[in-house]
Amino acid sequence: MRQAAKQYGIALDQWLDLSTGINPDAWPVAAVSPESWQHLPQENDGLEQAAKLYYQARHVLPVAGSQAAIQSLPLLRPCGTVGMLSPAYAEHEYNWSRRGHTVLTLSPDNIEQHLPELDALLLVNPNNPTGQTYSVGKLLHWYEQLAAQGGWLIVDEAFMDSTPQQSLAPYADRPGLIVLRSLGKFFGLAGARCGFVLAESALLDNLKDLLGPWTVSGPAREVARRALGDTLWQETTRQKLTEQGGRLKQLLNCYSLGPDGGTSLFQWRQHPQALAIHEALARQGIWTRYFEHPVSLRFGLPTTEMQWQVLQQALQQLMSNLNLSLREEMHETLAR
Amino acid sequence: MRQAAKQYGIALDQWLDLSTGINPDAWPVAAVSPESWQHLPQENDGLEQAAKLYYQARHVLPVAGSQAAIQSLPLLRPCGTVGMLSPAYAEHEYNWSRRGHTVLTLSPDNIEQHLPELDALLLVNPNNPTGQTYSVGKLLHWYEQLAAQGGWLIVDEAFMDSTPQQSLAPYADRPGLIVLRSLGKFFGLAGARCGFVLAESALLDNLKDLLGPWTVSGPAREVARRALGDTLWQETTRQKLTEQGGRLKQLLNCYSLGPDGGTSLFQWRQHPQALAIHEALARQGIWTRYFEHPVSLRFGLPTTEMQWQVLQQALQQLMSNLNLSLREEMHETLAR
Repeated sequence: MRQAAKQYGIALDQWLDLSTGINPDAWPVAAVSPESWQHLPQENDGLEQAAKLYYQARHVLPVAGSQAAIQSLPLLRPCGTVGMLSPAYAEHEYNWSRRGHTVLTLSPDNIEQHLPELDALLLVNPNNPTGQTYSVGKLLHWYEQLAAQGGWLIVDEAFMDSTPQQSLAPYADRPGLIVLRSLGKFFGLAGARCGFVLAESALLDNLKDLLGPWTVSGPAREVARRALGDTLWQETTRQKLTEQGGRLKQLLNCYSLGPDGGTSLFQWRQHPQALAIHEALARQGIWTRYFEHPVSLRFGLPTTEMQWQVLQQALQQLMSNLNLSLREEMHETLAR
Repeated sequence: MRQAAKQYGIALDQWLDLSTGINPDAWPVAAVSPESWQHLPQENDGLEQAAKLYYQARHVLPVAGSQAAIQSLPLLRPCGTVGMLSPAYAEHEYNWSRRGHTVLTLSPDNIEQHLPELDALLLVNPNNPTGQTYSVGKLLHWYEQLAAQGGWLIVDEAFMDSTPQQSLAPYADRPGLIVLRSLGKFFGLAGARCGFVLAESALLDNLKDLLGPWTVSGPAREVARRALGDTLWQETTRQKLTEQGGRLKQLLNCYSLGPDGGTSLFQWRQHPQALAIHEALARQGIWTRYFEHPVSLRFGLPTTEMQWQVLQQALQQLMSNLNLSLREEMHETLAR
């Protein structure tokens, strides 16, 4: 954002930032107790219990955001072949590769045929940015196959909170099944650096030993504990995000940004002129996330009604210009 | 503390906790901006600049407490021989050992003679728990020798903030000189998980790459930035801690806990009956830190006048009992 502000000469607070999949209407953090700032974070403060209840998981390990787990899991098994989709959240591929594992890039329809070659299968469910999802039944079926050959199934559920019934969390105590969760997206607390690994306890012990003590700050533990226990806010937010996600999907479809995929927190669109659209929106102070492979855009949720209007007007103007210039191009081509 | 509360049947909020060297009168955290919770922590928010100014250092890397650096530094050089004192903060030895380095235990008076064998020398200055200090001149002299043989001098300055003139921070851009600082002790923000590594930029780049992005939470970055810039609070606190450290030293000396060492934030005492003293104080709700090697106690600072009185009375009663029982023991021995 700061870079974009500089590049486009628009002040930081003038942007409509749609570049993340973070809930813009975050869990409201009230005052944090002074003790949380002052004392070393303690384990038996109720956070683990709140997480077990919220995720419906038997064992949980709080970590400094899923990022901490993403960086560490490749260190917990001998180098081997890890299958993952592309595109997906890029930190996974980066971290398994740099630790010496072979990353096998899969497509949604050839996962099954490659399972016998894999030491681990890593899926983001729902996938970021494509929004692709996998059913509990299918994932457990794949897990059984992987586990039988000593492999892991790792499921990054960063965007699962709106659809908890699709989560593998309740099964994560099975050996070799690892689920990553985070308070960054649905709860909108990306700055807190608090996530959870759900897995069998032996693996969590290894991970804990690797990460060392006090990895999540005291204030983050306090805030996470309260947010995970706030079922009323969670239910309201689930409804609201489902509505708003639908609205964003419809809005993009209206302006010829056809349906590709998404979740309640973002929509993803492939478009041959994605970069031009990204830049044109940026010139109007709307910041989206541009992907090169494949050429595509990710749109997060606007918050206020005014922001929705700003996005709609920008899209309207932009897409009619794009259509116009496309038409002109065609005319020129035909005239030649 | 929670364990002690259980063991001694004293409610958690009834304890006088002197077990840490953390300033009990912490930098006062006011409200944190919602953005710090909601957005991924960003690097160019002013924290690095505030730290450079406060530490008088050219290059700084914020890390999730010194602990993050303590765990990672052993990974940044080939296995070798690392010299350190015993007793010292135990996490250093644990982490270098488990990464395959050979730890050579030194005593304050044989450091110099062992320098030629060392790949790294790691000192805590002032040392925790002994309070031993080393002058800038002596450390730079040792650094020159180590650097000439490709070695490192690592100085953990967790307790340096009361005596900034003794810090090596201004020299830390020299290749192979690494200084660790933290907001845990002097600022009393141990829960924030924010510390700094000061070193040449190439080493900091390697460390940053190893640790990955977003290691310090947004709220901690905001609070640390403000605390590091609050020079008025820092000056007042330096004076106050120096006074209170002196008072604690005197109090312990009064009750035959003779002078061993300390800093403005703690006092350390060797005593053959240290365990008995630790337990007797615990029964009265005063929690100290007991060390087995050598048999010793560390006392942190009381906060309120009432807490000072509680400590004084407990010591008075305890030490007269101890003297009594010692005298009885002697009488019995003589009578036999």
